[in-house]
Amino acid sequence: MLIVPEALIASLVSPEDAFAAVEATFAAMARGDAYNFPVVREALGEGRQYGFKSGLDRAGKQLGVKAGGYFPGNAEKGMINHQSSVFLFDPDTGRPVAMVGGNLLTALRTAAASAVSIDRLARGDAKVLGIVGAGHQAGFQLRAAARARRFERVIGWNLHPEMLPRLGAVAADLGLPFESVELPRMREADVIVTITSSPAASLMAEHVSPGTHLACMGTDTKGKQEVEPALLAKASVFTDEVAQSVTIGEAQHAVAAGALSEADIVAVGQVLIGAHPGRRSAEEITVFDGTGVGLQDLAVAAVAVARARERGMGMEVGV
Amino acid sequence: MLIVPEALIASLVSPEDAFAAVEATFAAMARGDAYNFPVVREALGEGRQYGFKSGLDRAGKQLGVKAGGYFPGNAEKGMINHQSSVFLFDPDTGRPVAMVGGNLLTALRTAAASAVSIDRLARGDAKVLGIVGAGHQAGFQLRAAARARRFERVIGWNLHPEMLPRLGAVAADLGLPFESVELPRMREADVIVTITSSPAASLMAEHVSPGTHLACMGTDTKGKQEVEPALLAKASVFTDEVAQSVTIGEAQHAVAAGALSEADIVAVGQVLIGAHPGRRSAEEITVFDGTGVGLQDLAVAAVAVARARERGMGMEVGV
Repeated sequence: MLIVPEALIASLVSPEDAFAAVEATFAAMARGDAYNFPVVREALGEGRQYGFKSGLDRAGKQLGVKAGGYFPGNAEKGMINHQSSVFLFDPDTGRPVAMVGGNLLTALRTAAASAVSIDRLARGDAKVLGIVGAGHQAGFQLRAAARARRFERVIGWNLHPEMLPRLGAVAADLGLPFESVELPRMREADVIVTITSSPAASLMAEHVSPGTHLACMGTDTKGKQEVEPALLAKASVFTDEVAQSVTIGEAQHAVAAGALSEADIVAVGQVLIGAHPGRRSAEEITVFDGTGVGLQDLAVAAVAVARARERGMGMEVGV
Repeated sequence: MLIVPEALIASLVSPEDAFAAVEATFAAMARGDAYNFPVVREALGEGRQYGFKSGLDRAGKQLGVKAGGYFPGNAEKGMINHQSSVFLFDPDTGRPVAMVGGNLLTALRTAAASAVSIDRLARGDAKVLGIVGAGHQAGFQLRAAARARRFERVIGWNLHPEMLPRLGAVAADLGLPFESVELPRMREADVIVTITSSPAASLMAEHVSPGTHLACMGTDTKGKQEVEPALLAKASVFTDEVAQSVTIGEAQHAVAAGALSEADIVAVGQVLIGAHPGRRSAEEITVFDGTGVGLQDLAVAAVAVARARERGMGMEVGV
């Protein structure tokens, strides 16, 4: 099998690669060619979370699992808190094919998912990008979003505003003006990406203007929440996978509150394959509930493996 | 991380090692120090099965997953049909620690589980060992069982009797007389191990004498069945993990039929830690429902890793 270490990923997989891989994955899911297995997610104590996301893509011939989690004590040991690895297997024989460092890949595939949603659901004339959250992942979301529309400026909000200059630096790197704002000024945004680890809603319905596309990317487990359920109730809600959206995604709260039903939520892959029209008007609010599915991880890992093989990188080991 | 390929396992982990590791695991589970995460098991089509068993042992500091499955087309490609790998992670940081070939380990830990049950639940004077099943795994079960009691002879039954001479050869290797029998003659056995992949019961209550210990090792998924529910109804039933026993283990059928309740099933770890007396009389029939838990896999893999490190074997790779 081929070992592709974390340190090689940046040279092997670009944001554009991740976009293409994630788009193809969502389409394969919508066609029924690919499906995710149930997610395992466990609290290990002391704030540690661990779990497994896995799936099978019959069309792309991918079978595998991402093992990973959150270890809050890592930062003080000089490691990042999110740690994950992707393992790919031959779907015909079950033999291990590759192990791929999953940290950067997770960031890339999460950013790519919101970018796919912006590409397909935001208004074509979107000019102002809002980012709610300013952690490590927010910069990835900003970079990916900036490829999907010709934004003219970026506004950002974070619970801890002292972290916003880091996001501003990413905007500057992209040649985009950046401004730190209070939440009500998110009404200026045409596209908003939320990427927090918040346990309660920060973005309220009144903070979002008609015609906005909102990508909620932070809620991936029970108990997290980024936006007010009333916002989802008045929006057209899309997601990566409906089953995850209603259980561990942002929609869990609106569904629990009776403000949204599972039948109202559309897999974005349906838009990609032309089975759903997507945005219907310039006034509609569209929401993408990005929960993160195992197949995304397998797809970007498969890109890394293919590139590594082409270039003779990574380490082949007998197993 | 350390890669310990399949080919090294036989030189690193003995049946005695597996016995000690599995016994310690069942005890840790009973003390609440270790627990298994939910099992993921999926049909991939064309008879292929794939899944993930995982868990955390706080006491033994093990976190990991076994990824594996059954690929019926492998044999004609010169590979074994069961393929699995075990991945260990540092429970404090989530960093990958090792990848270990899981095929032989699975055979050893499954055999060790039935041996642990024989050691603790069979009558001390057991003389006749019965084996129901004659596939690849049956030989492992026979070898492990033979270490737990001083058996004087072995009797075997298989749906396809032409496979029994292979089991007889294992018995001969252990210096034990072997005889192929019809199922009613299993009444001669003091200990019976069932290790089939049968979808329906073959061993009936009338085939089992009072005082027998029965280890049912073949049923690890919905729809498999080895023994008549009436047999479990009149026996004292033990298992590796109660939650798996009633859902994917042999007890699933007796519980579904109302012949056994979940509350009647005892984790064998309770016997190991002295919280349950185990066998209460020489006439009692005891049953061990061995479903196979992820923590067993992690425990034997950890032995392989420790031995490999001691001896400078395996391959260290940067991830």
